[in-house]
Amino acid sequence: MSFERPNVEKMRGYTPGEQREGNDVIKLNTNENPYPASPAVAEALRALAVENLRHYPPPLADAFREAAASLNKVTPQNIIPTNGGDELLRLVITTFVDVNESILITKPSYSLYPVLASVQGCRLVEIPLQDDWTMPADFIASVANSGAKLCILVNPHAPTGTLLSDEYLTELAENFPGILVIDEAYVDFVDPDFGYDAVSLIDSFDNVLILRSLSKGYSLAGMRFGYGIGAEPLLHPMLYKTRDSYNTDTVSQRLATAALESIDYAEEIWAKIRASRSSLTAALNGLGLNTTASQTNFVLSQIPQSIGARDLYQALKDRNILVRYFDEERLRDKLRISIGKESEHAALLEAIRDIINA
Amino acid sequence: MSFERPNVEKMRGYTPGEQREGNDVIKLNTNENPYPASPAVAEALRALAVENLRHYPPPLADAFREAAASLNKVTPQNIIPTNGGDELLRLVITTFVDVNESILITKPSYSLYPVLASVQGCRLVEIPLQDDWTMPADFIASVANSGAKLCILVNPHAPTGTLLSDEYLTELAENFPGILVIDEAYVDFVDPDFGYDAVSLIDSFDNVLILRSLSKGYSLAGMRFGYGIGAEPLLHPMLYKTRDSYNTDTVSQRLATAALESIDYAEEIWAKIRASRSSLTAALNGLGLNTTASQTNFVLSQIPQSIGARDLYQALKDRNILVRYFDEERLRDKLRISIGKESEHAALLEAIRDIINA
Repeated sequence: MSFERPNVEKMRGYTPGEQREGNDVIKLNTNENPYPASPAVAEALRALAVENLRHYPPPLADAFREAAASLNKVTPQNIIPTNGGDELLRLVITTFVDVNESILITKPSYSLYPVLASVQGCRLVEIPLQDDWTMPADFIASVANSGAKLCILVNPHAPTGTLLSDEYLTELAENFPGILVIDEAYVDFVDPDFGYDAVSLIDSFDNVLILRSLSKGYSLAGMRFGYGIGAEPLLHPMLYKTRDSYNTDTVSQRLATAALESIDYAEEIWAKIRASRSSLTAALNGLGLNTTASQTNFVLSQIPQSIGARDLYQALKDRNILVRYFDEERLRDKLRISIGKESEHAALLEAIRDIINA
Repeated sequence: MSFERPNVEKMRGYTPGEQREGNDVIKLNTNENPYPASPAVAEALRALAVENLRHYPPPLADAFREAAASLNKVTPQNIIPTNGGDELLRLVITTFVDVNESILITKPSYSLYPVLASVQGCRLVEIPLQDDWTMPADFIASVANSGAKLCILVNPHAPTGTLLSDEYLTELAENFPGILVIDEAYVDFVDPDFGYDAVSLIDSFDNVLILRSLSKGYSLAGMRFGYGIGAEPLLHPMLYKTRDSYNTDTVSQRLATAALESIDYAEEIWAKIRASRSSLTAALNGLGLNTTASQTNFVLSQIPQSIGARDLYQALKDRNILVRYFDEERLRDKLRISIGKESEHAALLEAIRDIINA
């Protein structure tokens, strides 16, 4: 006998990217940062003693809220700290989307969104991107008339790496009567020349929630820390009603705060990753793997039919190189490759050459 | 305009106990452990480097599951690690209780249960304890016939400190067609002479979930780590469908594992706390504050009307001594006092004497 709610009973869970231990594994499959967090974060970790862990953490992570507010030029009341960005996604759905309401996303997109919609038991509307991964011309009108309670866009986009402009997002926020979540998990890797900045939207729009993660940009995937930026009335019910009482712990609060306070270090790493991204993109294109320009810390490469994406994924795995293969429509002929260290790219490219020529 | 779901809009959130910083504060208000975690936990903390935090954590906390399984003489498949015990409570409701279904609890009980029911939008049935805080004679029959999907009992009980026997829980599990959650957040402080052990219930009953926390017994409230013990079919949907993909982080997994693996140290502390509990109970009774025997790391004291519970709470707070006052039916004339160090008890008792004689 099963006790599950009917929506839970019929759903399938999220499949995280493979984690494999060992120093000889080149891990380019889960968009982790190839460089460790800043010396200031290391210092904050060393400064912790078990005596500090005897007490409950500050429930609202006050010091982190101050740091995030200062960095983003908003007030602490515009910041909600969460146990990874994933918790913020769950919270926004739990708080705002009822069972008979719907969530609108693009297809493809982050594969956790449909899972979270299933857990809540609400409906999901998926709008396909065009062949070149741009938005359909009528997207804003479709969203405006969809009746959806929530629209979640990952920007820059996963798994394609494309970026929507803040002007486009402004027009969308203006026309959409529901809540617009802009999942900026990869925003730290956007080329500064774009001048992209969506944070100012929260001044004009009470219906915009920006998601940030410290997993990628700040090399803290193991720490589980993310946060949301939004107007105070939008954040209030998540902060004071639906959030688990102590959702982030003492260690992660201190490390996350130190990470934001030493952003100069992170910015150097982002520049390094952008440079590696350019050279990897060029090299993959040179090998005949059509790879579009990306604004994230990964690239999406089209694998020629003669090689086959799944076969290449497996052949690389046999050589201890992990990349990500998605067994779904429009992605079955592609591989997503995280930006790693230059030495890891060299090994990857050599392996691909080997496999192609075998 | 509010975007909240109607159930969220009309609910009130959980109020955590006050956290106040400073070395001169005697904090007996949130049931934290007065002694730090074991040297093995300190060692695990020192062994961590930021390089370890670059990667996502093991999604299912495999090493912790092994340690918890070995400690409880079950298999790792019977263990679900969570971000504090609170996350397990939320998960069990999200997974199993639909909007039109109900959750049964006793009154009084842990004040988070009604909040979580409100977030889910399901119904709540509260059965009052008797005047001496024991269960009503017809409780098992009432639960059996309630039609509730979930029954949550905190055992030993909060905020009264009483213990239900495992025989009683067995009878309840046998008769209840829903899921019985036994919240054992305080079980580490039960006198071993009782021979209390509810874990064996999971062999016979697919509908029993036991909740454990490392916050109190293992001095890791700041780390947010708890776990559930249950039959594999009961845990499965929470493990693989409704749980956030990486719900516990690398640091907390390692520290929690080290804590369970060095249980001898924790057991010494539990014995110390039981001894302090006995002497504090006797001393409070000696001062005319009627205090019943407790099996937790706190006591509940009846405050004579001539003093007044709220007034005593405030007078102690003015002296930098924090205890917990609940502004609710049947608790307004009582204070909950966490077991601290002997020196903290001495200061507390002296302050109470002062206040009474003022």
